[in-house]
Amino acid sequence: MYDRIKGFRDFYPGEMAARREAIDTLEDTARSYGFREIGTPALERAELWTDKSGDDIVEELYAFEDQGGRHVALTPELTPTVARMVVAKQQALSKPIKWFSTRPFWRYEQVQQGRQREFYQTNVDIFGSSEPEADAEILAWAADALTGLGLSGEHFEFRISHRDILGGVLEAYADDVDTEAAIRAVDKSDKIETGEYHGLLVDAGLSPGDAEEFADLIATGDLEAVEATADTERVTEAVENLEAVLAAAEDYGAREYCTISLETARGLDYYTGVVFECFDSAGEVSRSIFGGGRYDELLESFGGQPTPAVGVAPGHATLSLLCQRAGVWPEESVATDYYVLSVGDTRSVAAEIARELRDDGHVVEADVAGRSFGAQLGYADSINAETTVIVGERDLENDEITVKDMASGDEVQVPVDAFPGDHARPTIVEFQD
Amino acid sequence: MYDRIKGFRDFYPGEMAARREAIDTLEDTARSYGFREIGTPALERAELWTDKSGDDIVEELYAFEDQGGRHVALTPELTPTVARMVVAKQQALSKPIKWFSTRPFWRYEQVQQGRQREFYQTNVDIFGSSEPEADAEILAWAADALTGLGLSGEHFEFRISHRDILGGVLEAYADDVDTEAAIRAVDKSDKIETGEYHGLLVDAGLSPGDAEEFADLIATGDLEAVEATADTERVTEAVENLEAVLAAAEDYGAREYCTISLETARGLDYYTGVVFECFDSAGEVSRSIFGGGRYDELLESFGGQPTPAVGVAPGHATLSLLCQRAGVWPEESVATDYYVLSVGDTRSVAAEIARELRDDGHVVEADVAGRSFGAQLGYADSINAETTVIVGERDLENDEITVKDMASGDEVQVPVDAFPGDHARPTIVEFQD
Repeated sequence: MYDRIKGFRDFYPGEMAARREAIDTLEDTARSYGFREIGTPALERAELWTDKSGDDIVEELYAFEDQGGRHVALTPELTPTVARMVVAKQQALSKPIKWFSTRPFWRYEQVQQGRQREFYQTNVDIFGSSEPEADAEILAWAADALTGLGLSGEHFEFRISHRDILGGVLEAYADDVDTEAAIRAVDKSDKIETGEYHGLLVDAGLSPGDAEEFADLIATGDLEAVEATADTERVTEAVENLEAVLAAAEDYGAREYCTISLETARGLDYYTGVVFECFDSAGEVSRSIFGGGRYDELLESFGGQPTPAVGVAPGHATLSLLCQRAGVWPEESVATDYYVLSVGDTRSVAAEIARELRDDGHVVEADVAGRSFGAQLGYADSINAETTVIVGERDLENDEITVKDMASGDEVQVPVDAFPGDHARPTIVEFQD
Repeated sequence: MYDRIKGFRDFYPGEMAARREAIDTLEDTARSYGFREIGTPALERAELWTDKSGDDIVEELYAFEDQGGRHVALTPELTPTVARMVVAKQQALSKPIKWFSTRPFWRYEQVQQGRQREFYQTNVDIFGSSEPEADAEILAWAADALTGLGLSGEHFEFRISHRDILGGVLEAYADDVDTEAAIRAVDKSDKIETGEYHGLLVDAGLSPGDAEEFADLIATGDLEAVEATADTERVTEAVENLEAVLAAAEDYGAREYCTISLETARGLDYYTGVVFECFDSAGEVSRSIFGGGRYDELLESFGGQPTPAVGVAPGHATLSLLCQRAGVWPEESVATDYYVLSVGDTRSVAAEIARELRDDGHVVEADVAGRSFGAQLGYADSINAETTVIVGERDLENDEITVKDMASGDEVQVPVDAFPGDHARPTIVEFQD
């Protein structure tokens, strides 16, 4: 007997039905905003990551040499792929380009609850607009997707910041500070001790006093204080941009979910402007549920024209944990409208009824295993059939069939010609007491 | 600039919309039969194929060693994975087990039209029934899926046979014939010269005279003649099973698409009973569109209890070729119900209208790039917006907006409070001449 690989999941029908409902909610919301679905490869040249991504992602790559000697990698994220796709057709594509897709990604990392080596994300991106409305539309999609799942402001918040606020404030403290190292320190500040955090800031080039002052300042989230302390054009512009995004988010109905949180930095180095992370308001899911932000320089680094971009990518594993804890995760079970039970030489009539019910849009199973009445009824129950249509030889002699409501057990005889007719739904059939 | 890997496709929105429509047709049809969606990993232990699959599939494996030293492979097909999943939960799963899924697979093979190294299939399988109804339901699903795409009996046919007919007839000619080699020869007979075909049969253990007679006999597709020539219980039972499957397919509405074709053998060694292949009736797509059949012994070979199984897996690349040649492939373009055009300081009203239209289930885009009236109208046209709602400052002073039908160019002024109201559809708005 073979086992599956560690960090890879099998999804059986009940769990898959719940996941599909969640994926449909995210995707239908994206479609309603005019985001367009794309399809992308599972393999890319490994150089897409080894050339410019952070060390973490490179260490976790599933990379290998293919039979043609290419150095390839299972994609650990979508952003480089969509960047490549935009660059490949940048003349032909009308902007803004609004794309989404749901698919698996792969990273060789420590397996834990909500983190597998194969994980699913819905990526939603806008290319070609540097306006705050684009950032706000990404936030609005995310908010609508989460409320569409049944979540509310009680359950989640978007912690939002701007990369240039941190960068600009750091710059104001010291010219030669290693901004990326300091931002990585801020990004980790939630998970480490204060002393270690301050130490990392000092390592990045701040004096011990500045490190503490800087840490305290950004912890307040007070945009006015930050702007006044830095007193540079860069920080002022970043604060104005962040405020403009929040104003647009207000118009788009997403402002109420946003909290200014200047410690939100996002680990990936390619973010340039507004960044945000979705957190569990109740704090039960301690790490960020998902994150996103603006990455205006990435496409140019892929050989394209300068193209502003902003996006987000909710992961389905953490999202399902959040939904489960909030009590809004869809039921993990299969649903069946009709089971057509055939006994004796009645297959052709049963098949005709099943076909008509399917044509009416119902989920209909019928016997394909030659089983007894009792075995079929047990199976109908196991697939949560709402109604069982019993097609028996004796009933058929009277041109009748029996329609059984599976919840109550009530049965009613119906002329075979009258079923399903125009009224396929079990509620239409009047059950006897 | 990075390029994508040979044999891997990017799907941009227009083409993806058509593919999604086709995938939805196949999946919705599967759901209507009570097949349940499952989710499966992209990577499995390479031994799932190296232990027992044919040489072809092993040579084409994307196999490598992961960071944990596991010998893994990108899955080239789904069957071993679903077999593993059934075996892992065989006590808990109520039978018959009816599963489907759509996803990519990977084989390092020669790239040509309709054949990429990354390719998508919808797999549909029934486990736990050896009855002819199960085979027939797989055929009925395939027929309904194809007619659901707009194809008809003019466009496709299912060539159907039974593995034991070929095996049994071969056995009747010579006890020591290498059945698998002979079946592989039959499987190739369409693509090679008659002399070479007969030669391969001789290599498999038939005398030259028997090889010719055998080839001629099975070419007729005459079940009675085959049964009489072989005169063995094995062949008689196989013919009876094939006829029983066709009779059930008649009840299920799929018989009209089936042609008995005893040369249909399917390349994979794990098939055991009825096998079939879907061909382009017009012969324009020369190789089989997809195939399927019964594989009753596979699950036991994976360490499970004996579990009969039958399935089919249409590939989306060949299916789209067939649909394109039949003129029924969905239009490769994006669709948009509304573009909400905002000029001046009108964003909050425009956003409110867009939200209401989205809540009504429409696909709605609005400006996120701060562009001019003309640029927005051009963009609305590029995304095939049916209707553009123009929210301008001057109109708003009169509490009005303008609704523009994009096909005719007709415009009408509407009170902002009355739109969209209960009547969001552009047909409801009365355009002036």
